This record gives sequence, structure tokens and C-alpha cells, in this order.
Amino acid sequence: MSSNYRNFRNSVSWLILFLEAVFIVLFFFLFSDDGASRSSISYPVFQDVNHMVIFGFGFFLTFLKRYGFSSSGFNLLIVVLGVQCSILIEGLLVFLLQRENEDCLKRITKATVSMTAVVISTGVVHGKTNPLQLIVMTVVEIIVFRMSRWINNTFLQIPDNISVMHVHLFGAYFGLAVSSCFSEPSPQSEKNASTVKSELFSVLGTLFLWVFWPSFNSVLAVDKRKAIYNTYFALAVSAVTAFVLSVLTSKDGKFRMTHIHSAVLAGGVAVGYAAHGVEYPWIAMILGLLASLTTVLGSCCLERCLNPALKIHDTSGVHFTFGFPGVLGALFQVILLVIKNWTNLPRYIISLGYLVLFQVGAFCLTISVALLTGFITG
Amino acid sequence: MSSNYRNFRNSVSWLILFLEAVFIVLFFFLFSDDGASRSSISYPVFQDVNHMVIFGFGFFLTFLKRYGFSSSGFNLLIVVLGVQCSILIEGLLVFLLQRENEDCLKRITKATVSMTAVVISTGVVHGKTNPLQLIVMTVVEIIVFRMSRWINNTFLQIPDNISVMHVHLFGAYFGLAVSSCFSEPSPQSEKNASTVKSELFSVLGTLFLWVFWPSFNSVLAVDKRKAIYNTYFALAVSAVTAFVLSVLTSKDGKFRMTHIHSAVLAGGVAVGYAAHGVEYPWIAMILGLLASLTTVLGSCCLERCLNPALKIHDTSGVHFTFGFPGVLGALFQVILLVIKNWTNLPRYIISLGYLVLFQVGAFCLTISVALLTGFITG
Amino acid sequence: MSSNYRNFRNSVSWLILFLEAVFIVLFFFLFSDDGASRSSISYPVFQDVNHMVIFGFGFFLTFLKRYGFSSSGFNLLIVVLGVQCSILIEGLLVFLLQRENEDCLKRITKATVSMTAVVISTGVVHGKTNPLQLIVMTVVEIIVFRMSRWINNTFLQIPDNISVMHVHLFGAYFGLAVSSCFSEPSPQSEKNASTVKSELFSVLGTLFLWVFWPSFNSVLAVDKRKAIYNTYFALAVSAVTAFVLSVLTSKDGKFRMTHIHSAVLAGGVAVGYAAHGVEYPWIAMILGLLASLTTVLGSCCLERCLNPALKIHDTSGVHFTFGFPGVLGALFQVILLVIKNWTNLPRYIISLGYLVLFQVGAFCLTISVALLTGFITG
Repeated sequence: MSSNYRNFRNSVSWLILFLEAVFIVLFFFLFSDDGASRSSISYPVFQDVNHMVIFGFGFFLTFLKRYGFSSSGFNLLIVVLGVQCSILIEGLLVFLLQRENEDCLKRITKATVSMTAVVISTGVVHGKTNPLQLIVMTVVEIIVFRMSRWINNTFLQIPDNISVMHVHLFGAYFGLAVSSCFSEPSPQSEKNASTVKSELFSVLGTLFLWVFWPSFNSVLAVDKRKAIYNTYFALAVSAVTAFVLSVLTSKDGKFRMTHIHSAVLAGGVAVGYAAHGVEYPWIAMILGLLASLTTVLGSCCLERCLNPALKIHDTSGVHFTFGFPGVLGALFQVILLVIKNWTNLPRYIISLGYLVLFQVGAFCLTISVALLTGFITG
Repeated sequence: MSSNYRNFRNSVSWLILFLEAVFIVLFFFLFSDDGASRSSISYPVFQDVNHMVIFGFGFFLTFLKRYGFSSSGFNLLIVVLGVQCSILIEGLLVFLLQRENEDCLKRITKATVSMTAVVISTGVVHGKTNPLQLIVMTVVEIIVFRMSRWINNTFLQIPDNISVMHVHLFGAYFGLAVSSCFSEPSPQSEKNASTVKSELFSVLGTLFLWVFWPSFNSVLAVDKRKAIYNTYFALAVSAVTAFVLSVLTSKDGKFRMTHIHSAVLAGGVAVGYAAHGVEYPWIAMILGLLASLTTVLGSCCLERCLNPALKIHDTSGVHFTFGFPGVLGALFQVILLVIKNWTNLPRYIISLGYLVLFQVGAFCLTISVALLTGFITG
Repeated sequence: MSSNYRNFRNSVSWLILFLEAVFIVLFFFLFSDDGASRSSISYPVFQDVNHMVIFGFGFFLTFLKRYGFSSSGFNLLIVVLGVQCSILIEGLLVFLLQRENEDCLKRITKATVSMTAVVISTGVVHGKTNPLQLIVMTVVEIIVFRMSRWINNTFLQIPDNISVMHVHLFGAYFGLAVSSCFSEPSPQSEKNASTVKSELFSVLGTLFLWVFWPSFNSVLAVDKRKAIYNTYFALAVSAVTAFVLSVLTSKDGKFRMTHIHSAVLAGGVAVGYAAHGVEYPWIAMILGLLASLTTVLGSCCLERCLNPALKIHDTSGVHFTFGFPGVLGALFQVILLVIKNWTNLPRYIISLGYLVLFQVGAFCLTISVALLTGFITG
């Protein structure tokens, strides 16, 4: 068995090496910086997003005792593979559709933002998959996500900076679908145990995500200033609510890490869709409050009834951290659009129709592809 | 008792929730971004300050064994509550005094800088208060600090960017006054124990503070470039002195964490008032040397005689990290002003008078309010 | 013996204090900001480099069990001493050669970049030297490195931004030469043991370095945009290769921390020389692949035969992390220059001659001075 294991490990290595060789060859053909329009993305903001995805998500999931190094180190591997893959798909689309080249820094930023979907999915299946499955999942997911974005952009007329924000929704539900194909580990498993020290690292990761979330939401937005302060206020309210609800729902009246983890970020996820469009901060604050509320109540009440029914084992509570607030944010954006277009009603019905259509489309795509992936990796 | 504890915990939660609801309602009335002048604050620098307050102060105090999560997590809660509160007070002042609106990013930055006072105070009472007391303290302190700044700006003609720097002084003495109202824990208490691992986190926090201090000192300064390099050199010298003095004063000739913690940052605190006005780096360097010297000698000699006399139990050595260098920096700024205005003597006497008056005013305000708070929370 | 130890410690302290006093006096004479040309370095990028040297290298070496605090805290001391020393030498050169003053921020940035050499050397002798030796080494190395750069700039016509990149090469070989003068510790020594937790901190350090490496390579480059994306791609490929090769070379088919540590950064080091000159990312990617390959294979195969022969004990694998990729990068830059100047052959022969001459010169300087230092510190 040990020999099998080694062979298997080696096959993973050769797969990755082969992938990397293919990437380099494709980069030779598809990637050039000629004729690129100047970037609207400044280097520090790109650095923030990069920082957030590598550190934040890397350490966000270190609270499981056994996966400290694996989650932070492997996260890096997946991110760099996925970013290259994503840039190539983008380059292929530019080549096929004869579009204008974008600035190189912008392309890397977009790819990094897209990778968030994969990193979120990884969180769901954390501790249930082997590296081979994770890498196949990464490549498949990044391709499918780009396709879904392309469909949204082309057929549903969703602007690019909003379709990118579907990253949380896509990541969470893709991950859940993949996760449902795996057998549930025994609940007494030592693998789910956490230690105080590893929780401190996890707090570090959460704080990284919290601090850099405004950068994430504003990097591709048109009105960056508005996106920054709306996200900040949504995050602030959502952090306060997370602490409060954590005390109210737990039996011993203490803060519970898992709630705080999830709910602190919920506001940022929810406000992502509409961050640049919200006129007054108090709207963003109410949204943050609602998102945090949904997350904690969801993780508290529904976890018992819903998960066993759907045979979902969600190790890191990703469904409640990114799934629910994502849905909430998308709904909120629709409502916002409805209110804004109230005066010119005919246009509103069409755009509402588009949005609903898009939602359904995104869901269908996600789940169908997720099942497909499940079969491939299974 | 367990039931009492739960009830108490729940009451804390409802208090915070009520506060948050009030904040949102007030934001509705008081906060608008219309007619704001363009910001002079770039997003990366705002991010640095945010980063520093959340991480730096969060992990700065993790070296106590039992308060790892509590200090880093709770720090976030206090910061976000305080920032909202501070922005509202600013908004109220703008509304009452019919001043011009400032840019939203600048308002958040100012609020974050003001929150440093609360975070420093929290360090003093670390491990002696319950969450309810801390939150009341946060709200009271932020209001009083804004009032004291308003008095300084209006009646004492202190420019805004200097009055903000009183944040360290105010925070340290407010915290000490509150702390003196609490009973001293037994010195053999296990709560004061620290572990090697938690010290590593604490080093992480200190380094965060060290790296981002130039951003903090320069964010509201007029001549940012000067403020940056003066702060950098003061910090550098102060770090060197901290290591040296730590060896010289300790009995076994080893570095002592607590000294280094405090003294490394002393230079940055001391140079805060005058960072933009110092002409030559060597002046900043001497100031850094003096600040570090005061801190280590202070924490070494005076701790034994002074603290028992005044019944102060300063868990984290905040008095020596932020109090002493703050006083030193304020004095230094006066001397600098004296030298600069030597030629036109009449003006100098008035400004010196103002400054001394201000110092006395700030001290009086701080201590009187602190005692008041002590009675409320006691 | 205890008393000797204290005396020794005290002498270290007085030495540092004396150094610091000398620095302040020299700053008084040599450092002025008058007539400085405006900086081409933005504050956030300076902050990134500062961040990277303090944190990244501080935590990069924390994986040894006993040196957690010592490596991260002492790193700060060495960096701040070295930066001051480096700025003074720069100031002396400006004074002696009557050159134009540079912007203060740029001078600090350059000094910080130069300090990387010392920090790398420190990694080699980690755990074998006492503080006194380290501080003497710091001062000597920074002076010699500046001299070697000055010779390169003046006599070999190497542009400034390339000569700075010799920092890795110089640091690694200087450190190795110093290290060869010390006796090798017993291999069963407990000092080389590492724990899971300290490895997590080490991962943190590596990720810091990984994320901020593009800032490091681009800060002094002329075409910053190109330098950023080339470094990013080289790092990405090198990270992927590091994971793959780590599995393939280890006996049990698991990731080995030490390999990943070294190889993840190899791409960034190798691409440093030519980052701004590489036209297409795929060239940078191949370079990253080669660098990572060299590093892992080198640390795997050569470690056994080479190190005992040369009596080198390289605690942190610095030779393979910074030495090999540095040589590779320098060679690569020569090849790139050859290809670019193919058409005008006469010029190429001269520049090639210069470069080879420079390489030999740098090596000779490094090793001769390193031996000298060894005698002084021994």
C-alpha cells in the first residue's frame, strides 16, 4: 500500500508538471502585452488582493488541527495554478473573440479574484479530498466559472465587474455539490478537532480577510471610493453583529469561533454585488446586519435539519459564510435595481428578468458541473 | 451563578445590538457624502492605518496566555464600534457647527486614529474588566476624546493634525485612571503568565506596529515625506536602544520581551507630535534614543516605587510605552516651537502659553473623566 | 562563567550603543535632505519592501525550535542597524564624490534592499554565532557590499538597479564563507529540531516573502510594470515546481518543508536581474522552472557530497535558496544581453567581457572579505 501511495503521489506530481509545461507553451502562444491599454489598477491594490487570497484564505482554514501546513501551503499551490489557468482562458477568449488586450496587471488581478471561487470550494471539501482531486477540481472549476461569466456577459448583459462578484456564490455551491459526492467522515473524527494555537492562526487569517475585503470589492468597481466605504461599513456592522449573535446563540454565553469566523465576513460578501451602487452607508450597514444575522442563525438552526437531509458535510461552514450572504447580496442588488429603475418601468422588467434568469442559470450551471466533477474525481 | 452569568452575557449582547441600531439610525441622519471635498488621503495609506490598528494592537497584547483570542478578536469588536461612534460624533459636530463635509475616507481614517486611544486604554485594563465595562469605556472615551480635541482646536488653536497625536497621551492616562479604580489581581495569578508561542504572536503584533508606524504618523500630516522619514529614523534608533537597554537592565543579560515591546515603539510615539516639523533626521534620532531610554528605565525603576503607591496595576506596561514617550514628545514639540519662534519672541510666549495650557487641560480632562468612568463602570 | 557571560553581554550592549552614538553624530554631518531630486518611489512600495525585510525574513527562519524569538526579534535589530549604516556610507560617497543627493525615501529603500544581503548571511550562520559576531558581521558586510557595488558601478559600468540585485549572490556566498570558519555543530543537536507550530510561522514568513517579492524586484527597476508581472509569473511557476519536486525527491512522497521553503522563492531570486528586461512572460516562467529545479535537485544531491567536502554547514539551506538561483539569474541575464546585442556584435563582446569580469570580481571580493571577517570574528 505504501508503494501504491508513492506511485499515486508521483502521478500527482507528473500531472502538475505536465499542466505547468502546457501552461508555459500556451503562454507562449496566447499571452502578449502588446497593444494593451493602460491599467486602471494601481499596484498597491493588486498587492492587497494578492495578499488577501494567499494569506487570508490560507490561514482562514488553519483551525483544523491536522491541516495547518496543508491548508496554508497547498492554498498557495492551488492559487498559482488557478491564476495561470485563468489567465490562459482569458487569453484564449481574447484571441477567439478578437477583443482588445487588457493590461497585464489587470489580467492577473481578475484571475486572482476568480480564484476565490476555487479557494472557497476547497474550504468545503477540506480534509476529504486528495491533492489529485483538488487539482482537477481547480482546473475544471476555473474553466466553468469563466464560461459562466462569459455567458452572463454576452447573453445576459451583466457588466463584467458584477459578474466577477458571483465568485462567492459559485464557489460555495460548487464546493457543496462536490462535497455531497463524498462520504461523510465520522463525526468523532480527530480530524475536525481544533487547538487554541491553530485558532489563533485562524483569527489571523480572518483578520487578514476582514482588513483587505474593501480592496477586494473595490478593485474592479467603477466608483472605487464608494465601494471602499460601503464595504467598510457593511463589514463593521457585520463584525459587531457576529460577536453579539455568537453570544446569544451559544449555550454557555461565550463567543464561539466558528460563528465569528463566518459572520464577520458575511457583510463584505453580501455588499460585494452592490458596493459601488449603494448611495448611503446606512443601507450598506443594514445589509451587513442582515447578512450576519442570516449567517449565524443559518449555521445555528439549519445546520441540524438541512445538512443531514442533503447529505452535506460542510467542514468549514462555507455554505453560511459565502453561500447565504451571496444569495442575499444578489437579491439585494436586484431590489436596488428595481428601486432605481422604478420610474422607467419597462426597462426594469427586462433587467429584472435578465437577473432572475441569470441567477437560475448560474445555479444550474454550478450544480450540474459540480455533479460532473464529482463523477470524474470519484 | 451560571444563569446570572448567562443573563449578564445576554445583556451585553442586547446593549451592543441596541448601540448598533442607534448607530445605523444616526448614520441615516448625520452621514452623507454630498459636497465632500476630495480626499488628500490615498487608499493604501488608509489601509495601512486600518491594518495597524486591527492587527498590530490585536496581536500586541496576545502574550498573556489566557487572552490570546480574546485580545485579538475583542480588539476588532471595540475598534469597529468605536470607529462608527467616532464618525457619528464628527458628523454631529459638522451638523451643529455647519462646517464643511470631509471626504468619507478621511473621516474613517481620523476615526481609526482616534480609536488608538481606546485600544491603548484597553491594554491597561486588560484582564480586569468584563466586556460590558469595556464597551461602555469605549463609547465614553471616544466621546470625551473628541470633546477634548474640539476644545483644543477651538479654544487653544491647536491644529487638527497635532491634536490627533494626543491620542497616545489620552489613551494611556485614561486607561491608568480607570485601572486604578479596579482592585489589583494577585501577583501570583496565572493570568499574567505568558508562553513562548504566544510571545511569538506578540512579536508579530509589535513588528506590525513598528512597520506601519510611519503611515500612522504621516497620514494626517501636512508634509508627509518628512513625517515618514523622521518617524522611520526615530523608530530605528529606538529599536536599537530597546535591545541594548533590555540587556543592560536585566539580571541575566538576556533580552526581555516586555522591555523590547514597550521601548521599540517609544520613538514612534514620541516623534508623533513633531514628525512633520523636524528639519534633520538626527534630531528625530536623538528623540528616539531619549524616548526608548525613558521607557526602559521607567519600567525598570519606577515600576516598583510608583505603581504600588498610586495603586496602579498596569498589565501591559502601557504607561511606559505610550504615556511617558507621549509626555516627552509633547515637551519636545514645545521646545521645537520655542526654538523656531525665537526670533519673533512675542508670538512665541503666547503659543508657549497656549501649549502649556493645553497640556494641563488635557491632563485634567483625562483624569477627571477617567475617574467618572471608573465610578460608572464600578 | 555566568559573570563572564554577563560581562560579555554588557560589552555587546556598549558596542551597539557606541555604534548608535557614532551613527547619530555622522547623520548630523552627512545626511541632509536639501536639494534632493523628487523621489520616483511611492510610499506604498517602500512600505512593501520594509514589510518584507522585517517580517518575511524575520519569520522565514523561525522554524528552528529554539530560535523563534531570537530570529524575528534580532532580525529587527540587525536590519535597523544595517539600514542606518548603509545610509551613512551612501551619504559619505555622495559627499566624497560630490554627487547629487537622492530623495530620502529612495535612500532608505536602497539601504533596506542592501540589508537583504546581511539578512541572508545571517540565515547561514544562524545558531552558530553570538550577537557580537553578528553585529560586527553586519557592519563589515554592509560596507563591503557597498564597496563592491561602487566598483561595479564605476569601473564595470553596471547600472545601479542591476548591481543592487547582486544582493542575493553576495549575501549567500559571504554567509557561506563566514560559516566555513565555524565548527560544525553535531548533527544530532537539538537546536536543529523544528516543531509543527514553528513551521507554521515559517510558512507565514515564506508567504510574506512570496507575496512581496514583486515589490522587491520592481522597486528600483526602470520599467516597473514589466518587472512586476515577470516576477509574479516566475514566482508562480517556481512555487508549482517546488511542490512537485518536493514530492518526487522525498522518500515518503510527502511535501518537505525545507524544499518548499527554498524553491518557492528561487524563481523570484533568479528573475531579479532581468525582471525589467524580459519581453515575454513565458521566458520568465521557464527561468522560474529552472531555478526551482536547480534548488531542489541541488539541495537533494549536492548537499551530501559538497557540504562535507567544503566543510560548510548551511543551517537554513541558504546556499540553494539564494546562491544557486542568483548564479542562474546572473548567467541568464548575460545570455539575454547576448541575444539582444547579437546584431551589433562588437558592443556585445565588450559588455559580455564586462559582465564576466564583474562576476569574477564579485566572487573574489565576497570570498576574500568573508575569510577576513571569519578571522576577525573567530
